Amino acid sequence: MLTPDELERLRVVLVSTRNPLNIGAAARAMSNFGFPRLRVVNPYDAAFREARSAVGAAKVLTRAKTYESVAEAVADCVLVVGTTAGCDRELQHPLRRLEHGSRIIRKQLTSGRVALLFGSEKRGLSNADLSHCHWLMRIPTNEQNFSMNLGQAVAVCLYELIRDSKVTAKTGKLEVASTGELERITSVLLEAMRFSGYLKRRPIADVDERIRRMVLRLKLPDRDTVLWLGILRQILWKLRSDEK
Amino acid sequence: MLTPDELERLRVVLVSTRNPLNIGAAARAMSNFGFPRLRVVNPYDAAFREARSAVGAAKVLTRAKTYESVAEAVADCVLVVGTTAGCDRELQHPLRRLEHGSRIIRKQLTSGRVALLFGSEKRGLSNADLSHCHWLMRIPTNEQNFSMNLGQAVAVCLYELIRDSKVTAKTGKLEVASTGELERITSVLLEAMRFSGYLKRRPIADVDERIRRMVLRLKLPDRDTVLWLGILRQILWKLRSDEK
Repeated sequence: MLTPDELERLRVVLVSTRNPLNIGAAARAMSNFGFPRLRVVNPYDAAFREARSAVGAAKVLTRAKTYESVAEAVADCVLVVGTTAGCDRELQHPLRRLEHGSRIIRKQLTSGRVALLFGSEKRGLSNADLSHCHWLMRIPTNEQNFSMNLGQAVAVCLYELIRDSKVTAKTGKLEVASTGELERITSVLLEAMRFSGYLKRRPIADVDERIRRMVLRLKLPDRDTVLWLGILRQILWKLRSDEK
Repeated sequence: MLTPDELERLRVVLVSTRNPLNIGAAARAMSNFGFPRLRVVNPYDAAFREARSAVGAAKVLTRAKTYESVAEAVADCVLVVGTTAGCDRELQHPLRRLEHGSRIIRKQLTSGRVALLFGSEKRGLSNADLSHCHWLMRIPTNEQNFSMNLGQAVAVCLYELIRDSKVTAKTGKLEVASTGELERITSVLLEAMRFSGYLKRRPIADVDERIRRMVLRLKLPDRDTVLWLGILRQILWKLRSDEK
Protein backbone atom coordinates (compact mmCIF):
# COMPACT_ATOMS: atom_id res chain seq x y z
CA MET A 1 0.00 0.00 0.00
CA LEU A 2 1.42 3.38 -1.03
CA THR A 3 1.10 6.40 1.25
CA PRO A 4 -0.32 9.70 -0.08
CA ASP A 5 3.26 11.05 -0.24
CA GLU A 6 4.36 8.08 -2.30
CA LEU A 7 1.38 8.36 -4.65
CA GLU A 8 2.28 12.03 -5.07
CA ARG A 9 5.89 11.20 -6.00
CA LEU A 10 5.02 9.24 -9.13
CA ARG A 11 4.91 11.17 -12.42
CA VAL A 12 2.95 9.49 -15.17
CA VAL A 13 4.55 10.89 -18.33
CA LEU A 14 2.68 10.52 -21.63
CA VAL A 15 4.98 11.14 -24.57
CA SER A 16 3.65 12.26 -27.98
CA THR A 17 0.18 10.89 -27.37
CA ARG A 18 -1.96 11.25 -30.49
CA ASN A 19 -5.49 10.68 -29.24
CA PRO A 20 -6.66 13.06 -26.47
CA LEU A 21 -9.19 10.39 -25.42
CA ASN A 22 -6.24 8.26 -24.37
CA ILE A 23 -4.84 11.07 -22.22
CA GLY A 24 -8.28 11.30 -20.62
CA ALA A 25 -8.38 7.54 -20.07
CA ALA A 26 -4.92 7.63 -18.48
CA ALA A 27 -6.07 10.46 -16.19
CA ARG A 28 -9.14 8.43 -15.22
CA ALA A 29 -7.02 5.42 -14.27
CA MET A 30 -4.70 7.71 -12.28
CA SER A 31 -7.67 9.09 -10.42
CA ASN A 32 -9.06 5.58 -9.84
CA PHE A 33 -5.84 4.46 -8.22
CA GLY A 34 -4.97 7.72 -6.45
CA PHE A 35 -2.01 9.05 -8.45
CA PRO A 36 -2.39 12.83 -8.87
CA ARG A 37 0.58 13.89 -11.06
CA LEU A 38 0.30 13.74 -14.84
CA ARG A 39 2.88 15.12 -17.27
CA VAL A 40 2.32 15.35 -20.98
CA VAL A 41 5.14 15.74 -23.50
CA ASN A 42 4.29 17.12 -26.97
CA PRO A 43 0.67 15.94 -27.18
CA TYR A 44 -0.75 15.87 -30.70
CA ASP A 45 -3.88 17.65 -29.52
CA ALA A 46 -3.23 20.55 -27.12
CA ALA A 47 -6.91 20.54 -26.05
CA PHE A 48 -6.54 17.21 -24.25
CA ARG A 49 -7.87 18.68 -21.01
CA GLU A 50 -11.41 18.53 -22.40
CA ALA A 51 -11.26 14.76 -23.05
CA ARG A 52 -14.64 13.25 -22.26
CA SER A 53 -13.02 9.94 -21.38
CA ALA A 54 -11.64 11.44 -18.17
CA VAL A 55 -14.70 10.63 -16.03
CA GLY A 56 -14.04 11.88 -12.51
CA ALA A 57 -10.48 12.90 -13.36
CA ALA A 58 -10.94 16.62 -14.03
CA LYS A 59 -8.54 17.44 -11.18
CA VAL A 60 -5.75 15.28 -12.59
CA LEU A 61 -6.20 16.87 -16.04
CA THR A 62 -6.36 20.42 -14.73
CA ARG A 63 -3.13 19.97 -12.79
CA ALA A 64 -1.38 18.16 -15.68
CA LYS A 65 1.78 19.88 -16.90
CA THR A 66 2.89 20.03 -20.52
CA TYR A 67 6.51 19.84 -21.61
CA GLU A 68 8.34 20.15 -24.90
CA SER A 69 10.88 17.43 -24.20
CA VAL A 70 11.23 14.25 -22.18
CA ALA A 71 14.40 15.70 -20.60
CA GLU A 72 12.42 18.56 -19.02
CA ALA A 73 9.55 16.29 -17.97
CA VAL A 74 11.80 13.93 -16.00
CA ALA A 75 14.42 16.42 -14.77
CA ASP A 76 13.32 16.30 -11.11
CA CYS A 77 13.02 12.48 -10.94
CA VAL A 78 15.61 10.14 -9.47
CA LEU A 79 14.35 7.14 -11.42
CA VAL A 80 12.99 7.12 -14.97
CA VAL A 81 11.26 3.97 -16.20
CA GLY A 82 9.99 3.41 -19.73
CA THR A 83 7.11 1.06 -20.44
CA THR A 84 6.94 -1.31 -23.37
CA ALA A 85 4.67 -4.09 -24.50
CA GLY A 86 6.89 -5.43 -27.27
CA CYS A 87 9.69 -7.90 -26.93
CA ASP A 88 11.11 -7.48 -30.42
CA ARG A 89 13.02 -4.27 -29.92
CA GLU A 90 16.79 -4.51 -29.80
CA LEU A 91 17.19 -3.66 -26.20
CA GLN A 92 19.70 -1.10 -25.06
CA HIS A 93 18.23 -1.31 -21.56
CA PRO A 94 17.60 -3.84 -18.85
CA LEU A 95 14.03 -5.10 -19.21
CA ARG A 96 11.97 -6.03 -16.17
CA ARG A 97 8.54 -7.61 -16.03
CA LEU A 98 5.88 -5.39 -14.49
CA GLU A 99 5.62 -7.54 -11.35
CA HIS A 100 9.31 -7.10 -10.63
CA GLY A 101 9.82 -3.54 -11.86
CA SER A 102 6.93 -2.32 -9.71
CA ARG A 103 8.63 -3.57 -6.58
CA ILE A 104 11.68 -1.44 -7.39
CA ILE A 105 9.53 1.59 -8.18
CA ARG A 106 7.61 1.21 -4.90
CA LYS A 107 10.87 1.16 -2.96
CA GLN A 108 12.15 4.24 -4.75
CA LEU A 109 8.88 6.11 -4.10
CA THR A 110 9.51 5.97 -0.35
CA SER A 111 12.16 8.66 -0.81
CA GLY A 112 12.30 10.06 -4.35
CA ARG A 113 10.32 10.96 -7.45
CA VAL A 114 9.86 8.38 -10.17
CA ALA A 115 8.82 9.06 -13.78
CA LEU A 116 6.86 6.33 -15.58
CA LEU A 117 6.91 6.92 -19.34
CA PHE A 118 4.32 5.79 -21.87
CA GLY A 119 4.99 6.32 -25.57
CA SER A 120 2.66 7.13 -28.45
CA GLU A 121 -0.12 4.76 -29.52
CA LYS A 122 1.53 3.72 -32.78
CA ARG A 123 5.21 3.61 -32.02
CA GLY A 124 5.65 3.52 -28.28
CA LEU A 125 8.73 5.27 -26.94
CA SER A 126 11.40 6.31 -29.46
CA ASN A 127 15.06 5.52 -28.97
CA ALA A 128 15.59 9.18 -28.06
CA ASP A 129 12.88 8.89 -25.38
CA LEU A 130 14.38 5.65 -24.12
CA SER A 131 17.81 7.22 -23.70
CA HIS A 132 16.38 9.06 -20.67
CA CYS A 133 15.26 5.81 -19.02
CA HIS A 134 17.22 3.86 -16.42
CA TRP A 135 15.42 0.70 -17.44
CA LEU A 136 12.30 -0.63 -19.14
CA MET A 137 9.24 -2.33 -17.74
CA ARG A 138 7.23 -4.83 -19.76
CA ILE A 139 3.58 -5.68 -19.27
CA PRO A 140 3.44 -9.48 -19.69
CA THR A 141 1.18 -9.58 -22.74
CA ASN A 142 0.73 -12.36 -25.24
CA GLU A 143 3.23 -12.60 -28.11
CA GLN A 144 0.42 -12.91 -30.66
CA ASN A 145 -1.06 -9.56 -29.68
CA PHE A 146 1.31 -7.75 -27.39
CA SER A 147 0.37 -4.16 -28.12
CA MET A 148 -1.98 -2.73 -25.52
CA ASN A 149 -4.34 0.20 -25.66
CA LEU A 150 -2.64 3.16 -23.94
CA GLY A 151 -5.34 3.79 -21.32
CA GLN A 152 -5.46 0.08 -20.48
CA ALA A 153 -1.66 -0.11 -20.19
CA VAL A 154 -1.64 2.83 -17.76
CA ALA A 155 -4.43 1.24 -15.72
CA VAL A 156 -2.62 -2.11 -15.47
CA CYS A 157 0.72 -0.52 -14.46
CA LEU A 158 -0.85 1.71 -11.81
CA TYR A 159 -2.90 -1.19 -10.46
CA GLU A 160 0.26 -3.26 -10.06
CA LEU A 161 1.82 -0.36 -8.12
CA ILE A 162 -1.07 -0.09 -5.65
CA ARG A 163 -1.98 -3.77 -5.38
CA ASP A 164 -1.70 -5.32 -1.98
CA SER A 165 -0.03 -8.71 -1.97
CA LYS A 166 -1.13 -9.32 1.60
CA VAL A 167 -4.87 -9.23 1.08
CA THR A 168 -6.44 -12.18 2.82
CA ALA A 169 -9.78 -13.83 3.00
CA LYS A 170 -11.20 -11.70 5.79
CA THR A 171 -12.96 -8.97 3.84
CA GLY A 172 -16.70 -9.09 3.37
CA LYS A 173 -17.42 -12.67 4.30
CA LEU A 174 -21.00 -13.17 5.30
CA GLU A 175 -21.56 -14.19 8.89
CA VAL A 176 -22.70 -17.74 9.10
CA ALA A 177 -25.81 -18.66 11.09
CA SER A 178 -25.30 -19.78 14.69
CA THR A 179 -25.72 -23.43 15.60
CA GLY A 180 -28.85 -22.57 17.56
CA GLU A 181 -30.51 -21.16 14.47
CA LEU A 182 -29.37 -24.11 12.40
CA GLU A 183 -30.83 -26.45 15.01
CA ARG A 184 -34.22 -24.71 14.71
CA ILE A 185 -34.08 -25.14 10.94
CA THR A 186 -33.05 -28.79 11.32
CA SER A 187 -35.93 -29.60 13.62
CA VAL A 188 -38.57 -27.89 11.47
CA LEU A 189 -37.12 -29.64 8.40
CA LEU A 190 -37.26 -33.00 10.16
CA GLU A 191 -40.89 -32.46 11.14
CA ALA A 192 -41.71 -31.43 7.59
CA MET A 193 -40.05 -34.59 6.31
CA ARG A 194 -42.16 -36.66 8.68
CA PHE A 195 -45.46 -34.92 7.94
CA SER A 196 -44.83 -35.07 4.20
CA GLY A 197 -44.50 -38.85 4.41
CA TYR A 198 -40.94 -38.77 3.13
CA LEU A 199 -39.55 -40.78 6.01
CA LYS A 200 -42.18 -43.45 5.59
CA ARG A 201 -41.37 -43.91 1.94
CA ARG A 202 -37.59 -43.67 2.39
CA PRO A 203 -36.57 -44.39 5.99
CA ILE A 204 -33.16 -43.02 6.97
CA ALA A 205 -31.04 -44.49 9.77
CA ASP A 206 -29.98 -41.94 12.38
CA VAL A 207 -32.11 -39.43 10.54
CA ASP A 208 -31.75 -36.58 13.07
CA GLU A 209 -27.95 -36.63 12.95
CA ARG A 210 -27.77 -36.99 9.21
CA ILE A 211 -30.12 -34.12 8.52
CA ARG A 212 -28.39 -31.95 11.13
CA ARG A 213 -25.05 -32.50 9.41
CA MET A 214 -26.61 -31.80 6.03
CA VAL A 215 -27.94 -28.45 7.26
CA LEU A 216 -24.57 -27.58 8.80
CA ARG A 217 -22.89 -28.19 5.47
CA LEU A 218 -25.02 -25.45 3.88
CA LYS A 219 -22.93 -22.64 5.44
CA LEU A 220 -26.19 -20.77 5.74
CA PRO A 221 -25.63 -16.99 6.04
CA ASP A 222 -27.01 -15.56 9.28
CA ARG A 223 -29.15 -12.98 7.48
CA ASP A 224 -31.06 -15.69 5.64
CA THR A 225 -32.10 -17.82 8.62
CA VAL A 226 -35.31 -15.91 9.37
CA LEU A 227 -36.48 -16.32 5.79
CA TRP A 228 -35.57 -20.00 5.66
CA LEU A 229 -37.32 -20.70 8.95
CA GLY A 230 -40.39 -18.79 7.78
CA ILE A 231 -40.62 -20.80 4.58
CA LEU A 232 -40.12 -24.15 6.31
CA ARG A 233 -42.60 -23.33 9.08
CA GLN A 234 -45.21 -22.34 6.52
CA ILE A 235 -44.68 -25.63 4.68
CA LEU A 236 -44.92 -27.54 7.94
CA TRP A 237 -48.11 -25.71 8.91
CA LYS A 238 -49.66 -26.58 5.55
CA LEU A 239 -48.63 -30.23 5.84
CA ARG A 240 -50.11 -30.44 9.33
CA SER A 241 -53.35 -28.74 8.42
CA ASP A 242 -53.78 -30.92 5.35
CA GLU A 243 -53.50 -33.96 7.59
CA LYS A 244 -56.32 -32.88 9.84
CA MET B 1 0.87 -18.74 -14.94
CA LEU B 2 -2.30 -20.16 -16.49
CA THR B 3 -2.15 -23.01 -18.99
CA PRO B 4 -3.89 -22.69 -22.40
CA ASP B 5 -6.67 -24.95 -21.04
CA GLU B 6 -7.14 -22.71 -18.03
CA LEU B 7 -7.20 -19.55 -20.18
CA GLU B 8 -9.83 -21.27 -22.31
CA ARG B 9 -12.02 -22.05 -19.29
CA LEU B 10 -12.63 -18.42 -18.36
CA ARG B 11 -15.69 -16.72 -19.81
CA VAL B 12 -15.60 -12.95 -19.81
CA VAL B 13 -19.28 -11.98 -19.74
CA LEU B 14 -20.23 -8.40 -20.65
CA VAL B 15 -23.77 -7.63 -19.54
CA SER B 16 -25.87 -4.89 -21.20
CA THR B 17 -22.84 -2.99 -22.47
CA ARG B 18 -23.92 0.28 -24.10
CA ASN B 19 -20.83 1.36 -26.05
CA PRO B 20 -19.56 -1.14 -28.65
CA LEU B 21 -16.10 0.47 -28.34
CA ASN B 22 -15.98 -0.88 -24.80
CA ILE B 23 -16.74 -4.40 -26.02
CA GLY B 24 -13.89 -3.95 -28.50
CA ALA B 25 -11.57 -2.71 -25.75
CA ALA B 26 -12.49 -5.69 -23.56
CA ALA B 27 -11.77 -8.04 -26.48
CA ARG B 28 -8.41 -6.36 -27.01
CA ALA B 29 -7.42 -6.84 -23.36
CA MET B 30 -8.56 -10.48 -23.58
CA SER B 31 -6.38 -10.97 -26.63
CA ASN B 32 -3.43 -9.20 -24.92
CA PHE B 33 -3.61 -11.57 -21.97
CA GLY B 34 -4.55 -14.72 -23.87
CA PHE B 35 -8.19 -15.30 -22.87
CA PRO B 36 -10.17 -16.40 -25.96
CA ARG B 37 -13.78 -16.71 -24.72
CA LEU B 38 -16.06 -13.67 -24.76
CA ARG B 39 -19.79 -13.75 -24.03
CA VAL B 40 -22.05 -10.79 -24.52
CA VAL B 41 -25.48 -10.48 -22.90
CA ASN B 42 -27.99 -8.05 -24.45
CA PRO B 43 -25.54 -5.55 -25.95
CA TYR B 44 -27.06 -2.16 -26.76
CA ASP B 45 -25.46 -2.23 -30.21
CA ALA B 46 -25.67 -5.59 -31.98
CA ALA B 47 -22.91 -4.54 -34.43
CA PHE B 48 -20.25 -4.65 -31.72
CA ARG B 49 -18.12 -7.04 -33.76
CA GLU B 50 -16.99 -4.15 -35.95
CA ALA B 51 -15.60 -2.12 -33.01
CA ARG B 52 -12.44 -0.35 -34.13
CA SER B 53 -11.09 -0.40 -30.59
CA ALA B 54 -10.47 -4.15 -30.86
CA VAL B 55 -6.95 -3.86 -32.32
CA GLY B 56 -5.63 -7.37 -32.88
CA ALA B 57 -8.69 -8.96 -31.28
CA ALA B 58 -10.74 -9.83 -34.36
CA LYS B 59 -10.60 -13.52 -33.45
CA VAL B 60 -11.99 -12.95 -29.95
CA LEU B 61 -14.83 -10.82 -31.37
CA THR B 62 -15.66 -13.25 -34.17
CA ARG B 63 -15.94 -16.13 -31.72
CA ALA B 64 -17.91 -14.09 -29.16
CA LYS B 65 -21.33 -15.49 -28.33
CA THR B 66 -24.42 -13.42 -27.64
CA TYR B 67 -27.07 -14.35 -25.08
CA GLU B 68 -30.40 -12.94 -24.06
CA SER B 69 -29.98 -13.58 -20.35
CA VAL B 70 -27.24 -13.91 -17.76
CA ALA B 71 -28.68 -17.29 -16.78
CA GLU B 72 -27.98 -18.71 -20.26
CA ALA B 73 -24.55 -17.08 -20.48
CA VAL B 74 -23.31 -18.68 -17.26
CA ALA B 75 -25.19 -21.99 -17.40
CA ASP B 76 -22.11 -24.13 -18.11
CA CYS B 77 -19.90 -22.48 -15.46
CA VAL B 78 -19.18 -23.88 -12.01
CA LEU B 79 -18.25 -20.50 -10.54
CA VAL B 80 -19.84 -17.14 -11.37
CA VAL B 81 -18.10 -14.00 -10.14
CA GLY B 82 -19.47 -10.47 -10.51
CA THR B 83 -17.13 -7.49 -10.65
CA THR B 84 -17.79 -4.20 -8.93
CA ALA B 85 -15.88 -1.03 -8.33
CA GLY B 86 -18.25 0.52 -5.82
CA CYS B 87 -18.35 -0.02 -2.12
CA ASP B 88 -21.68 1.68 -1.50
CA ARG B 89 -24.00 -1.07 -2.62
CA GLU B 90 -25.87 -2.96 0.06
CA LEU B 91 -24.16 -6.22 -0.37
CA GLN B 92 -26.10 -9.43 -0.64
CA HIS B 93 -22.86 -11.24 -1.51
CA PRO B 94 -19.44 -11.87 -0.07
CA LEU B 95 -17.04 -9.27 -1.48
CA ARG B 96 -13.42 -10.11 -2.20
CA ARG B 97 -10.64 -7.81 -3.27
CA LEU B 98 -9.26 -8.57 -6.74
CA GLU B 99 -5.95 -9.87 -5.34
CA HIS B 100 -7.76 -12.46 -3.24
CA GLY B 101 -10.63 -13.31 -5.56
CA SER B 102 -8.24 -14.00 -8.42
CA ARG B 103 -6.47 -16.66 -6.39
CA ILE B 104 -9.77 -18.50 -5.96
CA ILE B 105 -10.63 -18.12 -9.65
CA ARG B 106 -7.21 -19.45 -10.69
CA LYS B 107 -7.71 -22.52 -8.51
CA GLN B 108 -11.16 -23.14 -9.95
CA LEU B 109 -9.86 -22.79 -13.54
CA THR B 110 -7.66 -25.84 -13.08
CA SER B 111 -10.79 -27.99 -13.33
CA GLY B 112 -13.90 -26.01 -14.22
CA ARG B 113 -15.31 -23.08 -16.16
CA VAL B 114 -15.57 -19.70 -14.49
CA ALA B 115 -17.70 -16.75 -15.61
CA LEU B 116 -16.44 -13.25 -14.84
CA LEU B 117 -19.26 -10.71 -15.18
CA PHE B 118 -18.93 -7.02 -16.02
CA GLY B 119 -22.02 -4.81 -15.91
CA SER B 120 -23.03 -1.83 -18.00
CA GLU B 121 -20.99 1.37 -18.04
CA LYS B 122 -23.53 3.44 -16.12
CA ARG B 123 -25.03 1.06 -13.60
CA GLY B 124 -22.75 -1.93 -13.33
CA LEU B 125 -24.47 -5.23 -12.61
CA SER B 126 -28.15 -5.15 -11.59
CA ASN B 127 -29.46 -7.01 -8.58
CA ALA B 128 -30.99 -9.53 -10.98
CA ASP B 129 -27.57 -10.06 -12.61
CA LEU B 130 -25.93 -10.36 -9.21
CA SER B 131 -28.34 -13.08 -8.11
CA HIS B 132 -26.48 -15.41 -10.50
CA CYS B 133 -23.12 -14.70 -8.83
CA HIS B 134 -21.50 -16.79 -6.12
CA TRP B 135 -19.57 -13.76 -4.91
CA LEU B 136 -18.30 -10.37 -5.98
CA MET B 137 -14.82 -9.14 -6.73
CA ARG B 138 -13.78 -5.55 -6.15
CA ILE B 139 -10.99 -3.70 -7.95
CA PRO B 140 -9.29 -1.69 -5.17
CA THR B 141 -9.99 1.78 -6.54
CA ASN B 142 -9.99 5.06 -4.70
CA GLU B 143 -13.15 6.06 -2.83
CA GLN B 144 -13.15 9.52 -4.40
CA ASN B 145 -13.33 8.10 -7.91
CA PHE B 146 -14.06 4.41 -7.74
CA SER B 147 -15.84 3.90 -11.04
CA MET B 148 -13.55 2.52 -13.73
CA ASN B 149 -13.82 2.57 -17.48
CA LEU B 150 -15.11 -0.83 -18.60
CA GLY B 151 -12.19 -1.69 -20.90
CA GLN B 152 -9.70 -0.70 -18.22
CA ALA B 153 -11.51 -2.75 -15.57
CA VAL B 154 -11.42 -5.83 -17.80
CA ALA B 155 -7.70 -5.28 -18.49
CA VAL B 156 -6.85 -4.95 -14.79
CA CYS B 157 -8.84 -8.07 -13.79
CA LEU B 158 -7.34 -10.22 -16.55
CA TYR B 159 -3.84 -8.96 -15.76
CA GLU B 160 -4.29 -9.98 -12.12
CA LEU B 161 -5.34 -13.45 -13.30
CA ILE B 162 -2.23 -13.96 -15.45
CA ARG B 163 0.31 -12.12 -13.30
CA ASP B 164 3.19 -14.15 -12.01
CA SER B 165 3.98 -13.54 -8.36
CA LYS B 166 7.25 -15.41 -8.68
CA VAL B 167 8.95 -13.16 -11.23
CA THR B 168 12.44 -12.40 -10.04
CA ALA B 169 15.28 -10.14 -11.00
CA LYS B 170 16.87 -12.44 -13.55
CA THR B 171 15.21 -11.30 -16.75
CA GLY B 172 17.05 -8.97 -19.07
CA LYS B 173 19.86 -7.76 -16.84
CA LEU B 174 22.80 -6.45 -18.82
CA GLU B 175 26.06 -8.29 -18.36
CA VAL B 176 28.54 -6.22 -16.46
CA ALA B 177 32.04 -5.65 -17.82
CA SER B 178 34.79 -7.97 -16.58
CA THR B 179 37.38 -6.69 -14.11
CA GLY B 180 40.05 -6.93 -16.83
CA GLU B 181 38.15 -4.53 -19.05
CA LEU B 182 37.47 -2.22 -16.12
CA GLU B 183 41.17 -2.24 -15.31
CA ARG B 184 41.97 -1.13 -18.87
CA ILE B 185 39.49 1.70 -18.55
CA THR B 186 40.93 2.65 -15.15
CA SER B 187 44.48 2.83 -16.44
CA VAL B 188 43.59 4.91 -19.51
CA LEU B 189 41.53 7.20 -17.31
CA LEU B 190 44.42 7.62 -14.87
CA GLU B 191 46.79 8.49 -17.68
CA ALA B 192 44.30 10.97 -19.08
CA MET B 193 44.00 12.56 -15.65
CA ARG B 194 47.76 12.92 -15.48
CA PHE B 195 48.20 14.29 -18.99
CA SER B 196 45.35 16.73 -18.55
CA GLY B 197 47.13 18.23 -15.54
CA TYR B 198 44.23 17.31 -13.22
CA LEU B 199 46.43 15.48 -10.74
CA LYS B 200 48.84 18.40 -10.52
CA ARG B 201 46.08 20.84 -9.70
CA ARG B 202 44.21 18.48 -7.35
CA PRO B 203 46.51 15.73 -6.06
CA ILE B 204 44.68 12.62 -4.76
CA ALA B 205 46.18 10.26 -2.19
CA ASP B 206 46.20 6.61 -3.33
CA VAL B 207 44.89 7.83 -6.65
CA ASP B 208 45.10 4.46 -8.46
CA GLU B 209 43.00 2.65 -5.89
CA ARG B 210 40.47 5.43 -5.57
CA ILE B 211 39.92 5.72 -9.30
CA ARG B 212 39.75 1.94 -9.69
CA ARG B 213 37.00 1.76 -7.06
CA MET B 214 35.19 4.66 -8.72
CA VAL B 215 35.20 2.82 -12.06
CA LEU B 216 34.01 -0.39 -10.42
CA ARG B 217 31.08 1.44 -8.89
CA LEU B 218 29.85 2.38 -12.38
CA LYS B 219 28.52 -1.14 -13.02
CA LEU B 220 29.55 -0.60 -16.61
CA PRO B 221 27.68 -2.87 -19.04
CA ASP B 222 29.96 -5.18 -20.97
CA ARG B 223 28.65 -4.03 -24.33
CA ASP B 224 29.72 -0.44 -23.61
CA THR B 225 33.37 -1.07 -22.68
CA VAL B 226 34.72 -0.88 -26.25
CA LEU B 227 33.08 2.48 -26.80
CA TRP B 228 34.25 3.85 -23.44
CA LEU B 229 37.80 2.69 -24.05
CA GLY B 230 37.77 4.20 -27.52
CA ILE B 231 36.62 7.58 -26.24
CA LEU B 232 39.12 7.64 -23.40
CA ARG B 233 41.98 6.52 -25.63
CA GLN B 234 41.18 9.23 -28.15
CA ILE B 235 41.15 11.84 -25.40
CA LEU B 236 44.45 10.52 -24.08
CA TRP B 237 46.01 10.58 -27.58
CA LYS B 238 44.90 14.18 -28.04
CA LEU B 239 46.27 15.19 -24.63
CA ARG B 240 49.58 13.53 -25.40
CA SER B 241 49.93 15.01 -28.89
CA ASP B 242 49.06 18.49 -27.61
CA GLU B 243 51.90 18.17 -25.13
CA LYS B 244 54.50 17.48 -27.77
